[in-house]
Amino acid sequence: MAVAGATGYVGRELIGLLARHPLARLVRLMSSGRRSKSAAALESFPIEESHPGLRGVLDQGSRAPIERGGAAGPIRCQPLDLAPLTPAEVDLVFLATPHETSLEVVPELIERGLKVIDLSGAFRLKAPGVYPRWYGFEHDAAAALAEAVYGLPELNRDAIAAAQLVSNPGCYATSIILALAPLVKAGWVDVEAGIIADAKSGASGAGRAPSEKLHFAEVNENCRAYGLFTHRHLPEVIQALGLRERDLTFTPHLLPVTRGILSTVYVRLKGSPGSASAAQVAALYRDFYSRAPLVRVWDSGLPEISSAAHTPYADLGFALEPESRRLIVVSVLDNLGKGAAGQAVENMNLTCGFAQDLGLQ
Amino acid sequence: MAVAGATGYVGRELIGLLARHPLARLVRLMSSGRRSKSAAALESFPIEESHPGLRGVLDQGSRAPIERGGAAGPIRCQPLDLAPLTPAEVDLVFLATPHETSLEVVPELIERGLKVIDLSGAFRLKAPGVYPRWYGFEHDAAAALAEAVYGLPELNRDAIAAAQLVSNPGCYATSIILALAPLVKAGWVDVEAGIIADAKSGASGAGRAPSEKLHFAEVNENCRAYGLFTHRHLPEVIQALGLRERDLTFTPHLLPVTRGILSTVYVRLKGSPGSASAAQVAALYRDFYSRAPLVRVWDSGLPEISSAAHTPYADLGFALEPESRRLIVVSVLDNLGKGAAGQAVENMNLTCGFAQDLGLQ
Amino acid sequence: MAVAGATGYVGRELIGLLARHPLARLVRLMSSGRRSKSAAALESFPIEESHPGLRGVLDQGSRAPIERGGAAGPIRCQPLDLAPLTPAEVDLVFLATPHETSLEVVPELIERGLKVIDLSGAFRLKAPGVYPRWYGFEHDAAAALAEAVYGLPELNRDAIAAAQLVSNPGCYATSIILALAPLVKAGWVDVEAGIIADAKSGASGAGRAPSEKLHFAEVNENCRAYGLFTHRHLPEVIQALGLRERDLTFTPHLLPVTRGILSTVYVRLKGSPGSASAAQVAALYRDFYSRAPLVRVWDSGLPEISSAAHTPYADLGFALEPESRRLIVVSVLDNLGKGAAGQAVENMNLTCGFAQDLGLQ
Amino acid sequence: MAVAGATGYVGRELIGLLARHPLARLVRLMSSGRRSKSAAALESFPIEESHPGLRGVLDQGSRAPIERGGAAGPIRCQPLDLAPLTPAEVDLVFLATPHETSLEVVPELIERGLKVIDLSGAFRLKAPGVYPRWYGFEHDAAAALAEAVYGLPELNRDAIAAAQLVSNPGCYATSIILALAPLVKAGWVDVEAGIIADAKSGASGAGRAPSEKLHFAEVNENCRAYGLFTHRHLPEVIQALGLRERDLTFTPHLLPVTRGILSTVYVRLKGSPGSASAAQVAALYRDFYSRAPLVRVWDSGLPEISSAAHTPYADLGFALEPESRRLIVVSVLDNLGKGAAGQAVENMNLTCGFAQDLGLQ
Repeated sequence: MAVAGATGYVGRELIGLLARHPLARLVRLMSSGRRSKSAAALESFPIEESHPGLRGVLDQGSRAPIERGGAAGPIRCQPLDLAPLTPAEVDLVFLATPHETSLEVVPELIERGLKVIDLSGAFRLKAPGVYPRWYGFEHDAAAALAEAVYGLPELNRDAIAAAQLVSNPGCYATSIILALAPLVKAGWVDVEAGIIADAKSGASGAGRAPSEKLHFAEVNENCRAYGLFTHRHLPEVIQALGLRERDLTFTPHLLPVTRGILSTVYVRLKGSPGSASAAQVAALYRDFYSRAPLVRVWDSGLPEISSAAHTPYADLGFALEPESRRLIVVSVLDNLGKGAAGQAVENMNLTCGFAQDLGLQ
Repeated sequence: MAVAGATGYVGRELIGLLARHPLARLVRLMSSGRRSKSAAALESFPIEESHPGLRGVLDQGSRAPIERGGAAGPIRCQPLDLAPLTPAEVDLVFLATPHETSLEVVPELIERGLKVIDLSGAFRLKAPGVYPRWYGFEHDAAAALAEAVYGLPELNRDAIAAAQLVSNPGCYATSIILALAPLVKAGWVDVEAGIIADAKSGASGAGRAPSEKLHFAEVNENCRAYGLFTHRHLPEVIQALGLRERDLTFTPHLLPVTRGILSTVYVRLKGSPGSASAAQVAALYRDFYSRAPLVRVWDSGLPEISSAAHTPYADLGFALEPESRRLIVVSVLDNLGKGAAGQAVENMNLTCGFAQDLGLQ
Repeated sequence: MAVAGATGYVGRELIGLLARHPLARLVRLMSSGRRSKSAAALESFPIEESHPGLRGVLDQGSRAPIERGGAAGPIRCQPLDLAPLTPAEVDLVFLATPHETSLEVVPELIERGLKVIDLSGAFRLKAPGVYPRWYGFEHDAAAALAEAVYGLPELNRDAIAAAQLVSNPGCYATSIILALAPLVKAGWVDVEAGIIADAKSGASGAGRAPSEKLHFAEVNENCRAYGLFTHRHLPEVIQALGLRERDLTFTPHLLPVTRGILSTVYVRLKGSPGSASAAQVAALYRDFYSRAPLVRVWDSGLPEISSAAHTPYADLGFALEPESRRLIVVSVLDNLGKGAAGQAVENMNLTCGFAQDLGLQ
Repeated sequence: MAVAGATGYVGRELIGLLARHPLARLVRLMSSGRRSKSAAALESFPIEESHPGLRGVLDQGSRAPIERGGAAGPIRCQPLDLAPLTPAEVDLVFLATPHETSLEVVPELIERGLKVIDLSGAFRLKAPGVYPRWYGFEHDAAAALAEAVYGLPELNRDAIAAAQLVSNPGCYATSIILALAPLVKAGWVDVEAGIIADAKSGASGAGRAPSEKLHFAEVNENCRAYGLFTHRHLPEVIQALGLRERDLTFTPHLLPVTRGILSTVYVRLKGSPGSASAAQVAALYRDFYSRAPLVRVWDSGLPEISSAAHTPYADLGFALEPESRRLIVVSVLDNLGKGAAGQAVENMNLTCGFAQDLGLQ
């Protein structure tokens, strides 16, 4: 395996998961964005310089024979370069890169016969024509896009197992799709009444690049709504669930926590007053996710961010007001886990024929 | 003025505001809940023991001749006791006490002719019969309840000015009522479509009493929804706005911040597609709050918790999707400021004939 | 293995580590402190009720056949009871219990021939006579105390491997002893000049019991020093290092973080001005910890809490002012990891003849 | 008054304090660093764009007739430009600008006869020759430097009152000097034994410019030591106290809080064992600060960051081990209050002949 985009938060999480994975073998780390502190932009540098917590983690026996400066030297991250990414060296490449970078390198990697799991948004939307509106660029890799499989195992397990290119879902999108899919697929939702997904995310979801908006003193003791009606994860969700844009109102909020997303999802159920119960809803979800090892359906109580942070799970809980058939689904996951790197490892497992949750629990 | 409930977070905020107020004179602090560390429950103790940040603040010249242990000793908080609260000593009492305590002491204070500003929920709902459901007790002070004025100056300014008993609104309720009142009063809201208020609050709103749920390690790096369909501030809001219970879904969440509430309020406007604009909405609000010195209507951008925390203001911002007429109102305030102690001082100002915002800006 | 004290933060961490451990088998969870929400104090309850994040984690195949309510029911925590803790059922018991509880139950467990790893302070100090001063109780289990081995593997590896009773070190003590041992043992420290350990800890180190001091709003946006000259971990450190009480000033501080300790340790080195270098110091440490798999010595840069939080490691970095021979050692670990549960698993590994870091990396 | 550097955290605090000050009149805001979002770098923009919390605060009647775009438009911040800063328009300029900017503009402002309170470090050290080492630039304004008065009112009250140029102390320096001055001036400290100041600061002290080190996810759940033996505030402290560099070890740490500094200061007192008491120490401090309205000496208990955050005070508490004469002073202040803007207003008050704490309490 190789990881491009190794210096970001998702890259760090991926490296940590792959280092512990019993069957994966990390052979190359790359980064386009970050330069060594002590050297020019295009030289390699020890990955510990970017992620001190990984010190020694990749240095354990034979599991991770990543190229090094010298025999006992620390593990190094290379500048992003496609040349060494050949079938002779790697079989699968994780891209934790900007959308534009993924768009540029995926076609070449596909042509070489490599499997690719892309964690950017560049291959998530099926219609090339919508990219200018949502991503601000023309999509010029239509052939690769046509092959891409949306990597949400709970919906697309078999297609992922057969895919060469997996487009890993957005963190918010994963949270909201998992909260709604059982209900929507079963036709229980009164879609005309409108669905509201009020989501709250930790700051690691915004990436590691510095900005005033992400300064500690701006995020701490604060909470803010952003991207109202315009966030990029909206079209992913409506595509996955077969909704129209006006059916779903999605509002992301930035929380003063590092990891985790909690989505509070409001729907109105079809049917006559009093005809549904929370237990029926939980049973529907339990059935829908009966083969999903990393979705936990709560019979009682509600998950909190701390229930799922630092785990590979998505947690789902429910509250119903039977007379008015108002249902609230509370959906929680770790944006770096089930919302990004954890799900990417699930997708790797499926494409490699391993158990979906191998190395994750 | 006297403050009962001086050792909690709202009590501290009130003391701080009154100490700086140009026309208020704090003459007595009381607490039922807290005992001195060094003495028996029923003795007085220096208020600084409870609130170290107030050290020296009340000790400035002649402004606050609170009874002391000795000439230069620190200011002392007394056990809660009605005896000294007579018109000869005080003209107005703030109650930052538990609901049950307020219910018990308000009738006697009213009978003595004192003005009372009650920050508990004991006098917020007009119908005595609903208290068992929402507060878990029978309301046995119907006469006082009939006289109580709901202390939201933006709606009830004149009634407050004439009131003897003001019931200070709940923090969430203030946030949501201010977000909705202009629209609902103008008849712009499609109430049948349902209104959703997804609110996020800092932990000081839960009070100072220790509990596992409020342990630092349970709140930090976490966010949780609670009280779904059942929170006590719901009936306040629907009473103030003339809504039915099923019209409004209100979900509070606990944030890992100390102060502040952000409410994201979702409504659907009546009318034909494209017939409303965000500017029209802002103009409606600006007009509605033209005489409200402590409500700030944002023409552009959205307020965040940090916009209003540590201020006496409520901030309101808007996003509209014109075709579907979906409107999102973002309403922010400091739960200890406009959501509690600040609003209590506004109410004091009005009952005393001062400018509404005197001593607050 | 059995874990008593399963409902606290250390208990949770232990359960999580043991569930992932390749050779450990958790057969019983007990708690004295916490009752089920739904039942009487002495009934069992699902451990998920205490630790929602563990939902499903112990339910994986055959690895953890903990007694259950029914076949598919959730894992249950029992009231603390010595009766079932027999050699027929368990070989080793972890005690994450209050000092007084450990003091009471250890002798009986030892007598039954069980191995015990005690995470309380009840068996850390060798002299029974000092317990009244530091712990407030008379130590009435002198025989067990005489057998107890202080469970810091970097100092006592062989003794731990042979021990029946291991007394797991305090979190602050581990951090400071690891920072000082190489220097002190090598005789490099000018002890007469005094050693200062200024330590900063996350709030999970204070345990899960609610108190006003640990209320979110009291810890958040705050930092406070406590226990000056009197903290219980001081005698552990001076005992382990052979110092006198006046040689070491130890000041703990509470940080607004959940996990992690950073100790800034100030010493003056013996020798003539300019005679030492930071590289020499690092080499001394590297040599001292050459067989320690979970201590990471930093050649350059300084560890931060985030370097070690959520890891089993202790990280050590250095800054030296050569002329004045002032040395600062920065020592970081996770108070629930190397500072408690992680180190307890190391001790379990050693007493069972496994690799010291098995299941931890 | 004018404020240059209005868009940073110190600038915001200054504006807030001056807006509430009974005798100050803000007539101009300037910024070199920040551009309007909607316009070119050199145009003016509403200050609310930078500080949403100030919305409406400067718009109150006649107190702050700052130049506006139009009659009712929002208050605007101008590009930094000396031209309008003439005695005809302003009498005093606050510089919350980078060191280099202050160095450049101060001589011209002085020459015009304006009073200047400079919050940068450019005029804090008396010897021009030390600037290259500590600040990385040659000091080419020796004449102004010779006139500059170090603006710590507790030490230099009379000189400040007579000064044209006041150099406002660093936040850490203020905290440590106030902790040590009474002891050192009285000759009680065994300086040869070494003094250690272990200081912990909130992130607003690092300024508002974005950097990876200040990204929320890097500061949150973290604490790190930095600038060991090399921080710029060290020479200020030793200059103010008459110490040698080797006498004082100063280690700053970054805390995951927005505001506040807690310094834990370790000294050894001269004299025979048992000859000093904490009460004697407190009495010394109380006497030393008897005319200091913004220093609070604690007789018992220890201040915490929350004691002083959002206040203009510095709080000092003590713990003494009498036998070994080890004394720990805990010194707390708000880095934006007494550590920066609050102290700048004290200095303004003194140079204008007002009470030192006017408008601050």
